[in-house]
Parts: sequence; C-alpha cells; structure tokens
Amino acid sequence: MTRAAKGPPAVTRRRKFWGWGFEDQQPAHAQVEAAAAAAREHLGFGPAEVERPARLDDLDLPPARLEPPDALAAICRTDPYERAAHAYGKSYRDVVRAFRGRFENPPDVVAHPADEAQLERVLAWCEETKAAAIPFGGGTSVVGGVEPPGDRPAVSIDLKRLDRVLELDPVSRAARVQAGVTGPALEDQLRDHGLTLRHFPQSFEYSTLGGWIATRAGGHYATLHTHIDDFVESVRALTPRGWWESRRLPASGAGPSPDRMLIGSEGILGVITEAWMRVQDAPRFKKSAAVLFDSFESGAQAVRALSQSGLHPSNCRLLDPGEAALTGAAPDGKALLVLGFESADHELGPWMARALELCADHGGRRRERPAAGEERSSSERSSSSPERGESEVAWRDAFLQAPYLRDTLVAAGILAETFETAITWDRFADLVDDVRARARDALGAQSMVTCRLTHVYPDGAAPYFTVLVPASRGRELDQWTELKQAASEAIVGAGGTISHHHAVGRDHRPWYDQQRPEPFAVALRAAKSAVDPAGVLNPGVLIDP
Amino acid sequence: MTRAAKGPPAVTRRRKFWGWGFEDQQPAHAQVEAAAAAAREHLGFGPAEVERPARLDDLDLPPARLEPPDALAAICRTDPYERAAHAYGKSYRDVVRAFRGRFENPPDVVAHPADEAQLERVLAWCEETKAAAIPFGGGTSVVGGVEPPGDRPAVSIDLKRLDRVLELDPVSRAARVQAGVTGPALEDQLRDHGLTLRHFPQSFEYSTLGGWIATRAGGHYATLHTHIDDFVESVRALTPRGWWESRRLPASGAGPSPDRMLIGSEGILGVITEAWMRVQDAPRFKKSAAVLFDSFESGAQAVRALSQSGLHPSNCRLLDPGEAALTGAAPDGKALLVLGFESADHELGPWMARALELCADHGGRRRERPAAGEERSSSERSSSSPERGESEVAWRDAFLQAPYLRDTLVAAGILAETFETAITWDRFADLVDDVRARARDALGAQSMVTCRLTHVYPDGAAPYFTVLVPASRGRELDQWTELKQAASEAIVGAGGTISHHHAVGRDHRPWYDQQRPEPFAVALRAAKSAVDPAGVLNPGVLIDP
Repeated sequence: MTRAAKGPPAVTRRRKFWGWGFEDQQPAHAQVEAAAAAAREHLGFGPAEVERPARLDDLDLPPARLEPPDALAAICRTDPYERAAHAYGKSYRDVVRAFRGRFENPPDVVAHPADEAQLERVLAWCEETKAAAIPFGGGTSVVGGVEPPGDRPAVSIDLKRLDRVLELDPVSRAARVQAGVTGPALEDQLRDHGLTLRHFPQSFEYSTLGGWIATRAGGHYATLHTHIDDFVESVRALTPRGWWESRRLPASGAGPSPDRMLIGSEGILGVITEAWMRVQDAPRFKKSAAVLFDSFESGAQAVRALSQSGLHPSNCRLLDPGEAALTGAAPDGKALLVLGFESADHELGPWMARALELCADHGGRRRERPAAGEERSSSERSSSSPERGESEVAWRDAFLQAPYLRDTLVAAGILAETFETAITWDRFADLVDDVRARARDALGAQSMVTCRLTHVYPDGAAPYFTVLVPASRGRELDQWTELKQAASEAIVGAGGTISHHHAVGRDHRPWYDQQRPEPFAVALRAAKSAVDPAGVLNPGVLIDP
Repeated sequence: MTRAAKGPPAVTRRRKFWGWGFEDQQPAHAQVEAAAAAAREHLGFGPAEVERPARLDDLDLPPARLEPPDALAAICRTDPYERAAHAYGKSYRDVVRAFRGRFENPPDVVAHPADEAQLERVLAWCEETKAAAIPFGGGTSVVGGVEPPGDRPAVSIDLKRLDRVLELDPVSRAARVQAGVTGPALEDQLRDHGLTLRHFPQSFEYSTLGGWIATRAGGHYATLHTHIDDFVESVRALTPRGWWESRRLPASGAGPSPDRMLIGSEGILGVITEAWMRVQDAPRFKKSAAVLFDSFESGAQAVRALSQSGLHPSNCRLLDPGEAALTGAAPDGKALLVLGFESADHELGPWMARALELCADHGGRRRERPAAGEERSSSERSSSSPERGESEVAWRDAFLQAPYLRDTLVAAGILAETFETAITWDRFADLVDDVRARARDALGAQSMVTCRLTHVYPDGAAPYFTVLVPASRGRELDQWTELKQAASEAIVGAGGTISHHHAVGRDHRPWYDQQRPEPFAVALRAAKSAVDPAGVLNPGVLIDP
C-alpha cells in the first residue's frame, strides 16, 4: 500500500487485528490447542477441533470509498491491517467475525491525529464528505460502539497519539489528561507523583480515558464511586459547532451538568480530547478478606447490608457458587465474597471488623488463609502484580486475563459471552432468576450461566452474567444473537438497565430504546442535531442517524 | 374576589406574602423594633427607623391578563394574596420588593393541581394560550427562579397539593415521593418507618422535593453526597411532549443520564411530579466536635485534608473568624470548624479520632464543652430539635432561623445578602480574597463580608459569603445589584461556578452564560425546543425564551 508508506511512524509492536492483546502475545497453535483442550475438558464439553485465526494476507477487504486529502495523508492510513484493526470492538461477536476474516464494513480511512489542530481538520473533512466520523480509543467496545455503519464511507479517528498527562494539580489532586491515554500509560505517568486514577475496568490495558468517559465505564471501586463519572472534574470535546469545554469545578448547581451530558454520549456529540480527572494519593493501607456463604442469596443479603452500612468497601464482589467453582476460588457449592478496603490516610481495622460482623449476620465465614502481607504498605508497581495469599489480587489478575482467554475459547469452539445490568434490591432476585432461565433456554442444556455482583449500591446491585456453551461451528453469530436477545429481554423486562457499565452502542439499541424516557430521546436527538448538523459523529449509536 | 370562592379549600394558616414563614409567626412591630435595634447595635450600624411591611389590602396589583377556563376554575385562584405570594422567590431583592408592596409582574393565575391529570390540563391550557407556565414549589428561590417574565401572561403552577409519600421500598431503602412535599412533611411521613431523606437545605421548612431536584439543591451532607442529585433514583416529569419518567435504577451506564438532564433543569424541560428517592435508616450513632483554628487559612487546610481522607464526615463546616464572632460561636479571631459524623450502622470513634488528628496537624484544637449526650442514640424528632452543648445542632438551628431573621433585617434597614460558589483548592484562597475585596469595594467601609465553607470535596470547596451593610433606604435594589454584579464577576472571573447550590434562575444568567460551554448551550436550547415547542415552561430561566 502506497498509503501506508505516508502514514504515521509504524509501531514495532502491533495489536492483533482479530482479538485481544498484542500479536507477540498470541501463543503458538500447539499451545492454543493444549489450552483449548483443557478448557473444554474443565467445562465438560468434550473435544473439538481447534481453529486458527485468519491471516492478514488472506483478508479480502472491500475497496476504500474515500481517499484522504493530501493535507491529511500524513496522519491517515488505509492499509488492510489498520482498516481491519479498527473495524470492530471486542465482543464475542466481533472476535468471531474477525477470527474468521469477515470484514464486511471496515472503515475506509483510519486517522491518527497527534494534536487537536489535526483532529479539527479530520472532523472538518468528515463533515465536508459526509463520512461517518467514529472516535476510536482502545477499540475494546463490546456493544458495537466503534463499528462503522454500512450506509456511508467511514473514518475511524484513533486518538491514541493523544496519550499524555498535560498538567498536575497536587493540591486539588487533579490531573489534566489527554483522552487517548491507555490505563497503564496513565498510571505510569501518575505514579511518580504518588498519584493514581485507580480506574481498572477489565479492558484496562488497552482502553483509554476518552473511551471510559464516552461510555460511562465502571471501574475499580465496587461501592460509592463505581463509574468514571465521579472522577471527571471537567471535559473538553470537539463538536462540529466548536469546543465543548466545561470549567474545572469540584461541584456545581448551575443548570444541568454539561459534563453529565457528554459522559455516556458515546461519540455522538463530540470527540473527547482531554479531561481534568480527580486523582488520588496511592493507597497505603489495605485490608482484604474472602468470605464464604452457603448460597448466592445469603451472600447477596450480606452485600446489601454492606452497601447500606456507609463503610464503603473498595472491593465487594460476590461470586455465585458456579462462578466460584469455575475459577477454583471456593469450595463446591459456596458463594464467595471478595471484600477489600483501602486508604491513603488511615488504618482500616475498624472498617473490616464491622464489615465481617455484617457478613456473619448472614452466615458468612471468613476463609482462612496465610495472612502474610494482608495489611501492607502498598508498593504495587502495576495493577496486576501478583501477591500470593490475597484473594483480592488473585481475583483481579484473573479478571484482567479473561479477555485473553476468550481468544482461546473462540479457537476452541466455546461461546463465551457476558452481559450485565443493575437493578434495585427489591427486584434483584427475580431478575437474576429470569436472566439465568432465559439464557439457559436460549442455549440448551449444556450451557453454563454464572453470576457475580461487580458493583453494589445502597438501593441495588449490578449483576454480571457469564455464559459458556459449546459453539455451533459456523452458527456462532446466530447463537450469539439468540442469547443476546433472550438475556436483554429478560433484563429489560425485569426492570433493569440494558447496561450498567458497557454502554449502548449499536448492539443494545432495541432495549435501550425501550428503557429510556421518550421525551429524553426527543431531547437527545435535538441536542445531537444542533451540535452535529451534518450527523457525522458515530451515526447509529444511541439514536438513529 | 368571586374566583377565590371557587378555589381550593382555604388554608387556615397562610405564609406571609412578603417574607419568610407563616403570617402568625411574624412578631408584633414592637418586637421587630427591639430585635432590629439589637441587630444594628450588634453590627455597629447605629440606630435607624424600623419599617412596617406592606399590607395585603394596600396592594395595587396589575389586572390579570388571563382568566382560567371553567374546567380549571376549581383549582385556580386569582385573588391578590395568591398572586402576590407567587410573584417572587425569597432573595433579599424579592423580600425588599414585596415588603414595600412592589408587585409589577405577579402571575395572572395561580393553579393548584391536586393530581397529575389536573396538571396535564393546566399545562395544556398554558400551551393553548401561550402563557408562561411556572412550576412553583416552596417559592424559596433566591435567584429569580419563579418570577414571571413581564412579556406575556403567566400561570404559576403551585405543586404543594402533591405532598405524599406514595410508596416505600424498605429493602432497597427507597421511597416514591410526590414533588410538592415540603421537607418537614416528607420527614414526618418517613419517620414512622425509621427512614429519612436527610436533606436539610436552609429552606427545608418550606421548599419542596421537586424544587430541590429542579435546582440541584445542596443538603445536609458537607461531604460526599452533597447535592440532591445523589439521592435521586428516578424522576417523573410532565413535558408538553408527554411524560418523562426514568427507570428506578441504582446506577446505569446506558447513555447520558436522563435524570441528570432533568436535575437542575429549573422547570424549562418539564414539571417534576414524582421521584423515587434513596432514603436512609435514621442515624443511631453520632459524633460531633467543634475545632478552633488560628485562621481561616489553616482551617481550610485541615478541611482539605479531611475531604481527601476518605473519612466522609457528614458535617464539615468551617466558619471564618468574622462569621464565628458574629454568631458568638468562637472566641475572637478564631475560625471554627463544626465537624460531625453519623451512622445508622456503627460507632464512630475511629472516624472522629482520625479526623481530629488531621485537624491537629493544621493547628486545630478541639473546643472543650460538656460532653453530655455527645454520642447518643438518636431520637431527634425534627431537624431542628435543640440539644444543648452540641455545636452541630446549635449551628443547624441558627442556620434554619436565618431566613426569619432576614425579614427583621429588611425592616431594620440592613442589607443582608449571601452568595456562594465552588472552586478547586488550588484557586480557593485567591477566589475568597477576590470576592471579599470586590464585595467590600461595592458596598463601602461599613460592610461586613464573612465566609464559611458549606460543602467540601477532595478537589475543592464551596465558599459561602454573607454580606451585611446598612441599607440605603429606597436604594436597596441598586445596592443589591451593585453587590451582585461585583460578587458574581469576582466569582466567575476567579474560575468558580456562579452557584454551587442555589441554581441559575434569571438573576444569575449573565454569569452562567459566560460559564457554560457554548455547544452545551446550543444542545440545551435545542433539547428545550424539542420537548417544549411552544416555549411555555419557565421562560427566561437558564436560556433565552
């Protein structure tokens, strides 16, 4: 491709175009075969052929419908790798399609602006040509949030060159951060100053600040400040009508929050380029415990008491017996609560002691383990540094490894999908039962449906479901669609939200449209038309183009 | 008035049409004279004549431009008391005008819908006649939020008949509440169930849930959940395009929050009729302390440390030496921190102990007082039950009495005005200095300008200024305007918000317009036009009609 030669400097280490992580992280096929066999055996699914992912050279992409103008050529690429790597997010459906080399609708051009002036020129060009302008951060959407619509040429605007912490305000504990920075790169830049954003979604390694804000990502904290929303002090975004930049404020009562309108807007109102974020002193004190319950129900009651106690544990994740057994985290039949407190200011003994009392009130018994290092001065170098004997850290490592494992499951012919919601406590048990039943009905007797609570609130919880079932080779997308429909109908029918922390994108639209108040949809469409009259920004996400 | 005879049942106890509280709470003139003399002496302002408020019989209101249709006559009133009592909010400017009997622009009709069906008919009638439809809760706005614009007929829609708790969900700790309920009436209905909303703005006695939501009111908690926003689980509002009702959800990541768009919308998008609110178990454990500092600056540093500690005190209000002295709360020259913790779940010793250590780090010394009842099982019957020896309760009582005192100050010829903002810590000291200086410049040497912090955050604080100065009789409104302009310019110029918890209304518009991002204004205007095409809802508030 002549275009590639004119593009930005080639990165020596590339992410897989079809799955999670970097190309050099992909194990050899023999290793994938061994892991796949072990996974199928562990799940009781019986042996199956292990497939190989499509190779870049074999891709047959539709011809690009758009050529970048000379003025933008230096920051645009149109080569197959770039187009394929920006065609999808990372849902199971996305990985299956990419794994098989199915790219019906990749972006025509991928732009890599290195500064706001370049971004302005890219967006102006999209407006001129009426091309869809799709903001792209880590590309880790699992809801079709970055997938070009088929009806027009599309430009994927990759923001990862905007990757710096621009300013620090240690007095207010805030940082001005560019939107394209990934989780590790952000934490690296904050660490030397003793600060941290402490936002660890499962996509942490690859997803970006701008993506977190645009999708209202859920983060590290299981209670209190569960979403990125709470850490945003101000946002700066480029709209076709100019820069939308709010003041840095700790709080305000002046009109509806401009930030809360951008947070969760999924790229339809503007391209987020910067935010002032509330950061924190790195925690110095930690307490963690693993608590076993006889059932998910009794564990949930303890978690409800914890969430209403005002103790604000940082971790409070409840695994049902199925999920706990699957990961070997608890004895058979027991639900497991991973409980943690952390602070940069004070010892946490009284907090943990009271929390364990509340657990005991509901039959929870602390799992005894070597207590070494349990309360420690934190010197963790990364979010995933392994520390033996700590259920919390062990849990987090497994959590961050899950997307890598999914690539292997696809090769192994195992459908692995997750979906999640939030619901008030009064309707919680019914919703969980409904969703489990509908998912099993959709997928048949061999399916496994497990549940954990990822975030909890005084008035409800966020249940997160994992489904594993043998894939019907060649029919995976139909299987996925049947599951998605059944689960989403159950969730929305039981009163939940179609997503607690994975956004709406294109995949959740039918249920989101049912869920949101109609006059709000009217208001959002009008707001969108006013700031993006040409309708170029991420068309099809949240509302119809 | 014949109309009055057809109106809703007369209330035996009426609120003053010109000031704070009920008519039967207004002291006899001799008492006002004594109090006024004492106040002027305390402030060193010298003696002055004490004026009497206008009498209802002497009001000369402009003729009503609108007559309710027969179908609405039973819930509408057009008598002078009703029109006068709904003409203004309760800012100093409002009270001065009403006290003097100046009602240039009262609403033409006051509607009192008793249910949603009646409200629908009232709003439809406003659309037909293009009359301004002004939602009216407690009428305690201090920013011109309920004042009819002069350019068209106006209907004030008083929601106080919608005053019930409709449903309780004790499992999720939530209550479905009608928007017209006042603070005490709401707490009365929750108390029997051991629950409380615990939202105590200074207007608590008269303001309503719908008003709190529409204006993003600041409440009881000095840290963490400072605004009503955090307690809203879902909202129901009538727009000209139908009902805007969100799902009850503990949290969601599905698109921008529909609730956050209504919260702070000040009646321009819809009339709020109900909300599911997150309520709490009544607190059983309390710890409070008064801590003295040598200066406001050192107190502010302690408060910053507290706000960044993760201890989350419920009260953390810092009074500068001027304000502490004025209220006799602290020895001369000392700043006073009123610090409190409360919980329905656990003893608070470790929390308070660590907080006092942080205070001591900045020179704070706890003021010793009889400790009787300091940690008690709470049996408070009302938000203002006096309990001797508790600085927190004493402070709250004085806080709730302040608006009553203001009526006396108006009679005494004392201009008493407050304004507030929020600002990040790095710019906090400069902002406070600027505002003090500009307010003094505007009002001359006799003025007193004091400051307290009402709410605090990890990244900043909400300074609240009180100004007292001898009024220039007959020129009060000019004086007020000069002060408002000087203070608002200083606040917005120093990077603050024009309001942390008193909304925008009509009075804050010039500075709000400077503060908000322009594309957000574009989006808000478009959203408003889409849900209220006739432009009847509270025109002039937040945006131009």
